[in-house]
Amino acid sequence: MNIVSLSSDFASGDFEIGALAGVIWRIAPFARLVHLTHDIERHNVRQAALMLDRCVPYFPEGSIHVVVVDPGVGTQRRPLAARLGRQFFVGPDNGILTCLYHNTRSAGKTIKIVHANRREYWLPEVSNIFHGRDVFAPLVGHLAAGVALEDLGEAIDNPVLLQWSAPEAIEGGWRGEVVDVDHFGNLATNIHKRHLQGMQVRQVQVAGWHVDGMVRTFGDRPAGELVALIDSSNELGICVVNGNAQQTTGAQVGDEVVVLTEPNGE
Amino acid sequence: MNIVSLSSDFASGDFEIGALAGVIWRIAPFARLVHLTHDIERHNVRQAALMLDRCVPYFPEGSIHVVVVDPGVGTQRRPLAARLGRQFFVGPDNGILTCLYHNTRSAGKTIKIVHANRREYWLPEVSNIFHGRDVFAPLVGHLAAGVALEDLGEAIDNPVLLQWSAPEAIEGGWRGEVVDVDHFGNLATNIHKRHLQGMQVRQVQVAGWHVDGMVRTFGDRPAGELVALIDSSNELGICVVNGNAQQTTGAQVGDEVVVLTEPNGE
Amino acid sequence: MNIVSLSSDFASGDFEIGALAGVIWRIAPFARLVHLTHDIERHNVRQAALMLDRCVPYFPEGSIHVVVVDPGVGTQRRPLAARLGRQFFVGPDNGILTCLYHNTRSAGKTIKIVHANRREYWLPEVSNIFHGRDVFAPLVGHLAAGVALEDLGEAIDNPVLLQWSAPEAIEGGWRGEVVDVDHFGNLATNIHKRHLQGMQVRQVQVAGWHVDGMVRTFGDRPAGELVALIDSSNELGICVVNGNAQQTTGAQVGDEVVVLTEPNGE
Repeated sequence: MNIVSLSSDFASGDFEIGALAGVIWRIAPFARLVHLTHDIERHNVRQAALMLDRCVPYFPEGSIHVVVVDPGVGTQRRPLAARLGRQFFVGPDNGILTCLYHNTRSAGKTIKIVHANRREYWLPEVSNIFHGRDVFAPLVGHLAAGVALEDLGEAIDNPVLLQWSAPEAIEGGWRGEVVDVDHFGNLATNIHKRHLQGMQVRQVQVAGWHVDGMVRTFGDRPAGELVALIDSSNELGICVVNGNAQQTTGAQVGDEVVVLTEPNGE
Repeated sequence: MNIVSLSSDFASGDFEIGALAGVIWRIAPFARLVHLTHDIERHNVRQAALMLDRCVPYFPEGSIHVVVVDPGVGTQRRPLAARLGRQFFVGPDNGILTCLYHNTRSAGKTIKIVHANRREYWLPEVSNIFHGRDVFAPLVGHLAAGVALEDLGEAIDNPVLLQWSAPEAIEGGWRGEVVDVDHFGNLATNIHKRHLQGMQVRQVQVAGWHVDGMVRTFGDRPAGELVALIDSSNELGICVVNGNAQQTTGAQVGDEVVVLTEPNGE
Repeated sequence: MNIVSLSSDFASGDFEIGALAGVIWRIAPFARLVHLTHDIERHNVRQAALMLDRCVPYFPEGSIHVVVVDPGVGTQRRPLAARLGRQFFVGPDNGILTCLYHNTRSAGKTIKIVHANRREYWLPEVSNIFHGRDVFAPLVGHLAAGVALEDLGEAIDNPVLLQWSAPEAIEGGWRGEVVDVDHFGNLATNIHKRHLQGMQVRQVQVAGWHVDGMVRTFGDRPAGELVALIDSSNELGICVVNGNAQQTTGAQVGDEVVVLTEPNGE
């Protein structure tokens, strides 16, 4: 158990990321570190939850993932350590686990979560504003060094989970919403490939724009065209070929997306 | 063979980079990963080709380099795995290898390229829009884990190579062009140190600007001055001391560069 | 001694960071690399000095830290290799070591610095403008591979140190200055937690703004409020809750900061 992934909203201009690595290596010198991303939007727990869910399933069993997006640092919010299936997580109890929690549970796998409040597993001196370094990184180090999850604190079963809306079946299709905009301006939605199984998509509507049908990949259409496709997370995505769908459509996270379908083969 | 470098045009805001690392480590848990850069300009294969050529020669023999700049993802473009000298490459067949290919060939070293289409070395489920994760990362993992290059697919000898213009000898000098602008605004050209051997540079011309003579390094001139020098890739570079030559001159990739020379010692 | 941290002002768009990693691994294939930050402001040696001081103490003993912020590259400025306590440093002799040097000395720990000019520990070909790759990275590689610090060059005792102003006790408080602005716009000052021991802070003044009292952490106040607190480096910081104190106050590095205090318990 020595693979550790680091993520945060620190961007990269300062000292924070380096301090995390140092603390982890001091406790677990053989940990193997990789940065997932440090460009999560500041305090955007929802974005962190999506990112984590899209990366973690690809990691080897026993990997430890620490995510420091922590608007409540220094308040009463709990530090968590958790096992979801065979992946481990350390971070603040603010909803970052939401997607991974639901998906792990749907898959019938084990979830164990502890309130990681045993101070012997934190740094001796804990600041009020950088628990990434003072609380989460040492917890990761101890986990990587072989301390059992259960030893880090008492088990809890009420982690903070974000509200996450599911798409709604409507007559002749689905009504969902934009759940993410990536840095290329591609829109991700909460309408999954499985919602569209056996159906043909006639039209996708978002922010007043209508896209007829779906494409298989970007290269199927000329640059600049607005297209709908199943993205790499198996969700309905709305993109501009070689362009930026957010700029084109003005759509935002939370905007309604309507998909009109008809049975396949008609 | 366990050193792996990762490059892309993903920037760093989303989940893609993390997913690559996870997939590689799942197959080759002992691979040692380093990010070269993920800030290649979106879909700029030419920039990726230059970057690769400037990094790879410094790596230990047997390193594997995956570059995901892939505007043609999901279309008929081939996935490649290659050996150039003693370095390995995995990525799309779109010209990323151009510089490295020509330089390896000039040095008389072996080149082997395969069309890596054996699906047992890809992820079981392959999306149409993220072959970095679903095709290239697993290929890297299998190479790192000891699969032979030849086992990944059939040998080919016609990789896509970009047009790459050479400078032209003119009366009293050379006519070349700007091939790259780095993030400091320094201009790189296709005029190499060897083209200027035994000659003294009288003047360098670009975008209507004339620079008299060359300097050895930035510190030879005051801040703000436009200078010409041999850059760290042994190419003629045009820079502003502590400033930005692109902003100063307005020059773009592809702009003509003229160098006027005279024999050394005059 | 195989943990190596890399920092620079390269940002991340080009080939430089990758070349550093390759050179180090060629000499020390088992070195374990981590990037601290490559987003130090271009040529801002002062910012690099602060960053280094905030990261290094958290690293395992024997770690090697290379920082490439090098406006004087190619001039007479010396390449340094150093041991400060049980941490190692490689980089240009331009003041990057300032904070770490003073703090190591205050703690009564050993400092050894050498002018690392033995060319057998550099790359065979040294450019005039990229000593990070050609001089510093190979020095790091050799240190990581077991070469003794003393073998890299002759001992010196006059490294370049930046002027670093201490805060001044005034009647009823302290007068200091802004020493850093992080990428969230938080202001750091040279007034340390120890300067305020046993005192209660009545008011903090910066750039014409007055902040009454101090808070323990961001969550103690509503979003948008300007607050003063002890930051994670144990310095007095001035921040806007979920906002940007630099944008709010217009304060810059070097601006005066006044703290008015009264004895605790009054």
